[in-house]
Amino acid sequence: MKKNVLIIGAGGVAQVVVHKCAQNNDVFGDIHLASRTLSKCENLLATVAEKKAMKQEGVLQAHQVDAMDTAAVVALINKINAEIVINVGSAFVNMTVLDACIETGAAYIDTAIHEDPKKICETPPWYGNYEWKKRDLCAEKGITAILGAGFDPGVVNAFARFAIDEFMDEVTSIDIVDINAGDHGKYFATNFDPEINFREFTGVVYSWQQGAWQTNQMFEIGKVWDMPVVGPSQAYMSGHDEVHSLSANYPQADVRFWMGFGDHYINVFTVLKNLGLLSEQPVMTAEGQEVVPLKVVKAVLPDPSSLAPNYTGKTCIGDLVKGTKDGEEVEVFVYNVADHKEAYNEIGSQGISFTAGVPPVAAAMLVASGEWDAKTMRNVEELDPKPFFTIMDRIGLPTRVQIGGLGGKDQAWNA
Amino acid sequence: MKKNVLIIGAGGVAQVVVHKCAQNNDVFGDIHLASRTLSKCENLLATVAEKKAMKQEGVLQAHQVDAMDTAAVVALINKINAEIVINVGSAFVNMTVLDACIETGAAYIDTAIHEDPKKICETPPWYGNYEWKKRDLCAEKGITAILGAGFDPGVVNAFARFAIDEFMDEVTSIDIVDINAGDHGKYFATNFDPEINFREFTGVVYSWQQGAWQTNQMFEIGKVWDMPVVGPSQAYMSGHDEVHSLSANYPQADVRFWMGFGDHYINVFTVLKNLGLLSEQPVMTAEGQEVVPLKVVKAVLPDPSSLAPNYTGKTCIGDLVKGTKDGEEVEVFVYNVADHKEAYNEIGSQGISFTAGVPPVAAAMLVASGEWDAKTMRNVEELDPKPFFTIMDRIGLPTRVQIGGLGGKDQAWNA
Repeated sequence: MKKNVLIIGAGGVAQVVVHKCAQNNDVFGDIHLASRTLSKCENLLATVAEKKAMKQEGVLQAHQVDAMDTAAVVALINKINAEIVINVGSAFVNMTVLDACIETGAAYIDTAIHEDPKKICETPPWYGNYEWKKRDLCAEKGITAILGAGFDPGVVNAFARFAIDEFMDEVTSIDIVDINAGDHGKYFATNFDPEINFREFTGVVYSWQQGAWQTNQMFEIGKVWDMPVVGPSQAYMSGHDEVHSLSANYPQADVRFWMGFGDHYINVFTVLKNLGLLSEQPVMTAEGQEVVPLKVVKAVLPDPSSLAPNYTGKTCIGDLVKGTKDGEEVEVFVYNVADHKEAYNEIGSQGISFTAGVPPVAAAMLVASGEWDAKTMRNVEELDPKPFFTIMDRIGLPTRVQIGGLGGKDQAWNA
Repeated sequence: MKKNVLIIGAGGVAQVVVHKCAQNNDVFGDIHLASRTLSKCENLLATVAEKKAMKQEGVLQAHQVDAMDTAAVVALINKINAEIVINVGSAFVNMTVLDACIETGAAYIDTAIHEDPKKICETPPWYGNYEWKKRDLCAEKGITAILGAGFDPGVVNAFARFAIDEFMDEVTSIDIVDINAGDHGKYFATNFDPEINFREFTGVVYSWQQGAWQTNQMFEIGKVWDMPVVGPSQAYMSGHDEVHSLSANYPQADVRFWMGFGDHYINVFTVLKNLGLLSEQPVMTAEGQEVVPLKVVKAVLPDPSSLAPNYTGKTCIGDLVKGTKDGEEVEVFVYNVADHKEAYNEIGSQGISFTAGVPPVAAAMLVASGEWDAKTMRNVEELDPKPFFTIMDRIGLPTRVQIGGLGGKDQAWNA
């Protein structure tokens, strides 16, 4: 049994994480929130008070910390006696926070792959360049580190594992499809930090097919997926974290990620990219001011958290998994549907933050209970998916299955 | 007879002006070029040497001057004994340079209406807010000031005057159509300073119709014009300088300006405008840097002068003028066609700079000769167009006419 949680980060996902931890503080014990800017943490804690989210009386505290500074994170973990760290800060701080967990013995959970701010795209498998280099050390020291435990990566990794274990002898392909059919009513906005959002789509698209890494350009390969609830949706093959671990665990399968984009998003993205406005390299204005264009684009776009009050519609994210069972071809679609308005009503968040923030709390509950306290480094598909689904069913992200693939017999995962 | 020319500015239009003055330095005497940045002037003078553009030996000098500082401009005019000032600097410096001319007695010529950097759009007639306030003073002191003597405004004002004088008893409408059918081969670029270019299209569209100012939004009113040489071209009603003076001189006529835009330009413009990236109001980045988005857009776009080497195709700019003659309805289209590649071969400039830079030199030659030395302030339609056309025929911008309107009998203006 581990207890006392430190949440790193104070953005939209952190808001969901702190609310869900508060709603389950009987499991977690003390809850601490830390980021570079103390006032952001305090603002999030105020929303917890407003929603009366704490299940029982207990500790809920804000802290200032520079998560790029391992020693500072170590000091904080020791001071508050945290045994679980949920890192939902910027993707740039994974390695420093992980190092702090290794040093203190705390369990580590994150929701996205480590990124180097100076690099747009890395050679696959991306985890191999950062987190996995610490795998042996985690095993040796008995440190639990759960990588990529958001929705995608995270829940979709568990969807793949579940589909393969339950329905197949052999897996031949895993297609992860992420559709946001919501409407925020703005001319254009990104659903999370524009700086990170655009970085996902400016590099090479890596997929794992026919036993090797394949490369494509963004928006080169598109396909309409007839999704449950949200209906036919255009999506494009994109690079994404989970491809880099699923391909290592299931090298015999094709592993692809598909992100839904409307024509309008693609048009705005294409204009900005072609003009050079998504560049993280500084330019010089006529007046001699050095400016990073991407940071200006971020400054003019709506703050993702500002979208929440007027966001309507649903997301549908799932895995179409194909394989063989007793020599016959089989396929199954494992998925979740979430609703923007329901997320706002419960937590004051939009649906994208909700889907990303609930799973690491479920993972943390399983670490707390011991079921996922692996004493080593794990990607989510390397852990039993069923207790994960059971908790998520209860705390807001139920898992469903279509037997026979998209449009097949629809049921709860445990029906 | 006036002589010795001071050219203010060192951009693409100034390059054309200095070359054309050099080619006619037997008329002008000494030629001086001044801008805020001395090195820019020196670079332009180097291109004059390279093209061996000086007709005869003579003075050709670069100077540093802050054109926003009237006293500095006065001192320079006096020092070099300039009797003609061609202002092709930023539209923000008109009034300070005009004041310097009034103080020294030099003739003043510009190519665009004065702009206040803090205002995007002004109440019509725009000239009434700035230049025309000095009209009485110019008359009293015998100062020649020729406003808006570029192509549009400028040549198109002369086109209107010519069409009305030669072909009509009464004018009923003047439609000025500006089509650039050239191809610079870039994803996107503006043909002159992006900061000024976009400002033209972010404000209200003023037109003069049915004896009153009418307002529309940019890209609200579009129409295909079947132009000579360049063929059918989509153009949109836009605000433009010449509408503000032609409406005062021909209040009985509808006066409209139409600027050609392809769908791609409109798309890029619309994305940038809707995102707030064309704003001249500063925004704050997440890192706390204050930045004017429009200046960053300018920094990432190609320098307009860099387009010249690869620019191909032609421009066609003209006036469709309608009226009555002996009780019958008549119409005539007066126009010029210019070629980007020819402009580059002669001067190293692209066609847009060429069409804007040749006319003020023709005007200056008429001031030098006395024909346009009006001893008062004049917009171009208030001056005899024929000597203007005669010079422009010779120095690179011949005027043609289609009798009966667009597609009518095509001939030289003086056929």
